[in-house]
Order: sequence, then C-alpha cells, then structure tokens
Amino acid sequence: LTENELIALLRASAIDPSARDLMDDAAVLGLGSSQLVLTHDMIVEGVHYLADDPPTDVAWKLLAINLSDLAAKGAKPVGVLLGYMLGDDDWDRAFAEGLRAALSAFRVSLLGGDTVAGGEGRRALGLTAIGTCSASPPSRAGARPGNHLWVTGTIGDSGAGLALLQEQLKGPNELVERYRTPRPRLDAGQSLAPIVNAMMDVSDGLLIDAARMAEASGCSVAIEIESVPLSQAFLSAVGNDRESRFKAITAGDDYELLFAADPQRSSDILALSQSLGLAISRVGGFRPGTGLIVEDGGEQVPLPERLGFEHRS
Amino acid sequence: LTENELIALLRASAIDPSARDLMDDAAVLGLGSSQLVLTHDMIVEGVHYLADDPPTDVAWKLLAINLSDLAAKGAKPVGVLLGYMLGDDDWDRAFAEGLRAALSAFRVSLLGGDTVAGGEGRRALGLTAIGTCSASPPSRAGARPGNHLWVTGTIGDSGAGLALLQEQLKGPNELVERYRTPRPRLDAGQSLAPIVNAMMDVSDGLLIDAARMAEASGCSVAIEIESVPLSQAFLSAVGNDRESRFKAITAGDDYELLFAADPQRSSDILALSQSLGLAISRVGGFRPGTGLIVEDGGEQVPLPERLGFEHRS
Repeated sequence: LTENELIALLRASAIDPSARDLMDDAAVLGLGSSQLVLTHDMIVEGVHYLADDPPTDVAWKLLAINLSDLAAKGAKPVGVLLGYMLGDDDWDRAFAEGLRAALSAFRVSLLGGDTVAGGEGRRALGLTAIGTCSASPPSRAGARPGNHLWVTGTIGDSGAGLALLQEQLKGPNELVERYRTPRPRLDAGQSLAPIVNAMMDVSDGLLIDAARMAEASGCSVAIEIESVPLSQAFLSAVGNDRESRFKAITAGDDYELLFAADPQRSSDILALSQSLGLAISRVGGFRPGTGLIVEDGGEQVPLPERLGFEHRS
Repeated sequence: LTENELIALLRASAIDPSARDLMDDAAVLGLGSSQLVLTHDMIVEGVHYLADDPPTDVAWKLLAINLSDLAAKGAKPVGVLLGYMLGDDDWDRAFAEGLRAALSAFRVSLLGGDTVAGGEGRRALGLTAIGTCSASPPSRAGARPGNHLWVTGTIGDSGAGLALLQEQLKGPNELVERYRTPRPRLDAGQSLAPIVNAMMDVSDGLLIDAARMAEASGCSVAIEIESVPLSQAFLSAVGNDRESRFKAITAGDDYELLFAADPQRSSDILALSQSLGLAISRVGGFRPGTGLIVEDGGEQVPLPERLGFEHRS
C-alpha cells in the first residue's frame, strides 16, 4: 500500500476528534485545563537521512522534525519519547550524545521510550514529541478565500543541500546544514498561532503542502512564485530563474511554517518578523474553488509533474 | 552497545523527574490538574513476533504491550500514536483492520503517527500510548522490606506458546493465544494502583522483573517458586516440577502485573481478585539487603544462569 492508502484504512481507528482525522501535523488533546499536542515522526536511513550523515546530525533531525510539528500548532515542547534501533557502537554513542545536545538546545527532556536490537536492513528511528498549547491551536483546515499565504524563513535550501551531498550541485556548506540540522520554528509558531487561520510546517515541499492546506480548508490557493523567499546560498548555488524557483518549492525538508492569515493581520505579521529576526514572506493567497495554481508576475504558469514528496514523510 | 549501555548514555538526556530516570515502564507527567502517563514500545519481526504470526495479532500485541505499561501505572488509556513501516499490501491491510479491532476492544482512539517506506530487513513497528492516572501512580521503586510480592493471572503461558510455535513443545492452542494476543491488565491496574507500594508489568520474565523491582526499591526479594501461579494448559504441556516452574518464571511476554504491597493489604487484594474474576497470587516477599533468591518449600535453591530477557524489550 502507499502511505496514503494505509492512512485511509487507519482513519477507521481515529475515532477521537483529537486525531483530526489523521489530516494534521499533530493530535491536539484536551486534558482538564490543558491542551496537549502529540506527534510521532519516524526517519529511515536512505530515505530521510543519508547513511553517512553524522549520527549527531541524525539525532538533531529526528528531534527537529518532530518539534517542527509542535511549532505548527504553536505548542511549547514538554518532552519526548525515543524509539531507537541499535546499530554499531560508535554510531549509537554519537547519536546519544547528539540527542543530548539537541534536547538541551531546545530545553526538552527525554521522558522514556524503547530500544530494540537492529535488523539487517535500513535503520528506522522514531520519536514522539509532547507539547502544550493554547485552547484553540490552528489546524491546517482554517484558511478562507481572501486569506494571504505566508511562509517563514527561506525555501529550498534543504533540497539544495541534499543535491550537494549527492554531488548534483556545488554550493556553500550552509545548504548542507539546512538539510542535516533543520531549525524548528518554535518561537515563531507560538507567536503566530493566535493570529493565523491555518498553519502547518513545510516538510514535503511548499507547493504540495500549500495544496494540502487549501484542500483541507475547502478553497483554492495561488502561489506567486516570484515572491518565494530564497537564501543567498540558494541563489548562488541554484539560480533565480523560474526553473530554480520550481526546484525550491518542490523540494522537501524545509521545516518552515506555512500559514494563512486575514489581510488585516499583515502588519502584525511583519512586526513579528522584525521582533523575531526571522523573514516572514507573503507567497500567495487563497481563493474560492479548489486546486492549486502557480503565477509568475501575475501570469499563470504550468505546474510541474511532481509537486513534492507524496509518500515519504 | 547493549540496550542497557545505551540507556545509561541516554539518561543524561532524561533531566525531567517525569522521566523517572528511564527506569520505569512509563513516564508520568504532571500537567495542570492531570497526570499523564506516556509509554513507547517497539516490536521487531523475528524478535518480538514471528514473521508468520497473523498481522491482526501483531497489531493486537503492539497495542497490548503498550497498554500493559499504562496498566502498571494504574492509568486509563486515552489514545495512541502509531509508527508504522509499510510492508506488503495484504499484511498492511490486515494489520490496519487488526489495529482497528484491538483499539475498539480497549475503547482507545488512534490519534496520529507516521508511516514510512519499509527497508529490506526486519520490520520495526512502534506505538506510543497515552493515559491519565491518579496524582501519585506507583513506580517500581516503592517496595519495602516486609512487603509481599504478588502477581496477577498465570505465568509462563506465553513462553510455552512460543515454544509451541517453534515446535519445541506440544500443548493446547490457548498457550499460543497468550503469546500472540496478551491481555493488558488495565482494570486490575486501576484498582490496584491506590493500594500497592510498587508495580510493574512482567514483560521480560517474572524472575528478572522482580529482581529489577527489588533493585529499584533498595531491598532484596525472595520468590517462593511453589507459589507461582501456573495455568492448567501450562501444567499439561510443560509440567509442575521445579524445572518447569523455572521455565515459567524466566520466560517473557506474560504482561501480568507484578506488585509489592503491605501485608495488611492482603484481604483487600484477595477481595479485588474475587471482584475482578482474576487470580492474584502471593509469590514472595521483600527483605532487607540486596539481590534475588528463589525458595522451594522454604529452602533456597540455585538460580538459573539466565534470569529472563535482558536486552530485548
């Protein structure tokens, strides 16, 4: 089965509204006076990280991609549980030290988990992150026609970093860092959550993730490709033409926040960008109807065949 | 590294007291007025289940072993997150249906999780279970000298069931069911939690798990091997001599509750056993000092070389 087919089958088990029909980045569970946010992401060798990525970076990434799901709900991380498949001794030691450093950087405690003997194949590592959030955290389903679409940071760096590691590209090492050690936008998520209508993290590519937000929200979305924020490193390594920009918005692993907001929130958002020292860019808008279009200078342009990663995250 | 060596390294990351130093079945997290219990267990093909076990039973087991950790804290399950590695289509479909049935049997909702493409090697599946519990759930560290040691149900059935499947033994199919579809003692756990001093589930074998409870509690423990509760199925398939009884207490996967209680709680415990319709048997007691002894009719007998599963669960 594909991932989507399996999720369709599992939906029969997601009877609690907290599960958000398995459509969201995280489950949101009301518990007494608290709102709990729960997420579990796995990474597989050769799929989500490269076999020769440093184990300290793999530990960082496993934590960061889960914290990114909490960030998308505006949650504050509380702790994590680790599901670890043992490998060779040096790798295990370096991973444990990398996880300690990463948890310490985000001031999060390891709470528990499980370790098992590894198999012969690719290793799979899982992590559950638990956070708390406000009474009504944003889902990905709240965008409305007329809302603006915004994204934090820059897009495409991580995909360019992976291309560098695969020797398909030359460019600054900063791109590799974006691939190996993504920064979950926890502070931005907490500040944005009260003023957005929908929010998610960009993990499979801006284009496909924007399409998912539009679909969940029952509207269509237009991306203004010339407005997609690109880093100097990306521009120098990949370029600034339309093809380069399509590369950026169809690559995965950005772990930036993508959100919908009313136009009258724009000045609040730009002020927040200033105070956080983090670029927040308007990259399009929501419209009535369904579907996804990409515009370049106001003209609609053809969509690429592949919008992003469909069956991977 | 062995599992224990890795856990020793990871302990540096378990800075929050909720983590219970990674020594307990589950983390217990105070959150507003609620106490949250969190556990994550993985199962690996060929280690925790057999490659030809029915996928519906594998789904049941993955859920049951996690709910058993909640039971040991007297917790009520709230929901689960699944970490699933895709396999072949028929297996995936049967697993999804088995998980739905198992979740429904325990009235628990799937809240979220992740699915990833499988590797070439053994499959690993993970599950995080979340529950709520009373203000001060039992740990495994609360046993005191003079406490009695008790266990629910019968011991050794699951190990005998595995031996049956491996064609090392002949006996009733009921033993195979105990191996494939263990029953977490959720009701018993919730009733026992307020009256015990320490509690854990028996997953790696009664002998090694009792030794762990004694070590965590800073006392020694004596097992009265003639008092260990054995099922009719076990007695007919394996036997009733000392060797058979050692087989029972060194086999894993019982998922019964093991607990320490003050002697004056005995009548409450036996009344509870009546009302639950579940055997609860006194199998030993805690003493000053450290270590583990086994007695047969009041005489100390030599310990086996292997106490249970050390690096597996």
